[in-house]
Amino acid sequence: MSQKPPLFTVLSPALLHLYEPKDSIVVIIDVFRATSTIAAALYHGAKYVIPVDSVSKAIEISRKISGIAAGERDGKIAEGLHHGNSPLEYSSDFIKDKILVLTTTNGTRLLQMAVDQSAQVIISGSFPNLAAVCDFLASGQKKVLLSCAGWKDRVNLEDALFAGAVIHYIGKYFTIHCDSSLMAKVMYEKNKNDLLGFAPQMTHYHRLVERFGLIEDIRYCLSENVAPVLPVYREGRLVAERI
Amino acid sequence: MSQKPPLFTVLSPALLHLYEPKDSIVVIIDVFRATSTIAAALYHGAKYVIPVDSVSKAIEISRKISGIAAGERDGKIAEGLHHGNSPLEYSSDFIKDKILVLTTTNGTRLLQMAVDQSAQVIISGSFPNLAAVCDFLASGQKKVLLSCAGWKDRVNLEDALFAGAVIHYIGKYFTIHCDSSLMAKVMYEKNKNDLLGFAPQMTHYHRLVERFGLIEDIRYCLSENVAPVLPVYREGRLVAERI
Repeated sequence: MSQKPPLFTVLSPALLHLYEPKDSIVVIIDVFRATSTIAAALYHGAKYVIPVDSVSKAIEISRKISGIAAGERDGKIAEGLHHGNSPLEYSSDFIKDKILVLTTTNGTRLLQMAVDQSAQVIISGSFPNLAAVCDFLASGQKKVLLSCAGWKDRVNLEDALFAGAVIHYIGKYFTIHCDSSLMAKVMYEKNKNDLLGFAPQMTHYHRLVERFGLIEDIRYCLSENVAPVLPVYREGRLVAERI
Repeated sequence: MSQKPPLFTVLSPALLHLYEPKDSIVVIIDVFRATSTIAAALYHGAKYVIPVDSVSKAIEISRKISGIAAGERDGKIAEGLHHGNSPLEYSSDFIKDKILVLTTTNGTRLLQMAVDQSAQVIISGSFPNLAAVCDFLASGQKKVLLSCAGWKDRVNLEDALFAGAVIHYIGKYFTIHCDSSLMAKVMYEKNKNDLLGFAPQMTHYHRLVERFGLIEDIRYCLSENVAPVLPVYREGRLVAERI
């Protein structure tokens, strides 16, 4: 029997370099809300998503290619943009056959870090596309880094919970010597039957719900498999591989 | 009623700067084994401990002051030294009235980082001096950073568990908006009745027990309040404040 490949959970973008992304599949995780929004947009028929690291770049690129510039800074629609980082904005009616140019505080920044650190394969994951991510990883036979976007390099729970969910479902296919993975798995298994009930204890919940009233966003971002699609990063774009 | 001061758990030395140590009490946590060894040595009567960041410095300083040079690299006694980082080496018979000059892979490095980042107060904590740390923090009325040494900047469980223990006992005296603290507390409360039984799941356990047979070290490092002393860092030295 061949040896199982290793799997690690990387709780902050500031720790990614410790795990040598260059021979790995890196899963970008930004549950609230970038990678949930990416799953929603692609599942609802967006041609592709271009993740960019600044608002000015989002505007510039979207003009050139007649795309939709969107994004947030500190939880709200970024100044100069008309569309934000809510997965609920990207229904089929709105996004089908369009190109989304997205910039966010944490998720798109982490994706760029994975690119800069020469990750072999980059995909994005959140609860709406949990099973799609799990299926892909389980069949990959490669080292996996479950890479959490966090909040400005601080560790957050919702991203750790998603890492824990992946480990809960497909951990058995990997060799896991990683305390962060063990913590993530325990946190998910303890709360998996009521993620929404657990959410008010998370720091990001307060940012999104108490300041902006985004409870429906939270509900969507924690819903498993409502956007079953696999976003894969290729040549500057996240494209859908349907499962 | 005055507002409660904030408390954060910092899961890796690489994240310490995000939490602005300069107005904080920083608790250096390196359960396996630096901060357990520091507690043991001071409790057993060492005059003080000088933490240094290199073996050569440990040898040089210990010669000058007739101290005991000790330390480890990658889990074993560092080359050139005769004493290591095991708390069991530092009984009263051996260490009473002596000066310990200690260098370790993670703990002493983190302490130096806290010094460089101008932490207001630095203490060290581990299970052997849990209550002493808790008593000090509860009465401090200052911002607290529970700062985990981890393993070469990777997050580890034993340090997170100690942070969780502190929060379990004295979290109520603080304002805690920190997902790392919530994870740490959950992990501690889930395992507090059998920390030793949980230890084999930790990556560092394998390093220490399977490679070096140090199960008695692990047992000591996870024993609560067997060395009730408060190590406080002052002018290059960790000195004991007895409780």
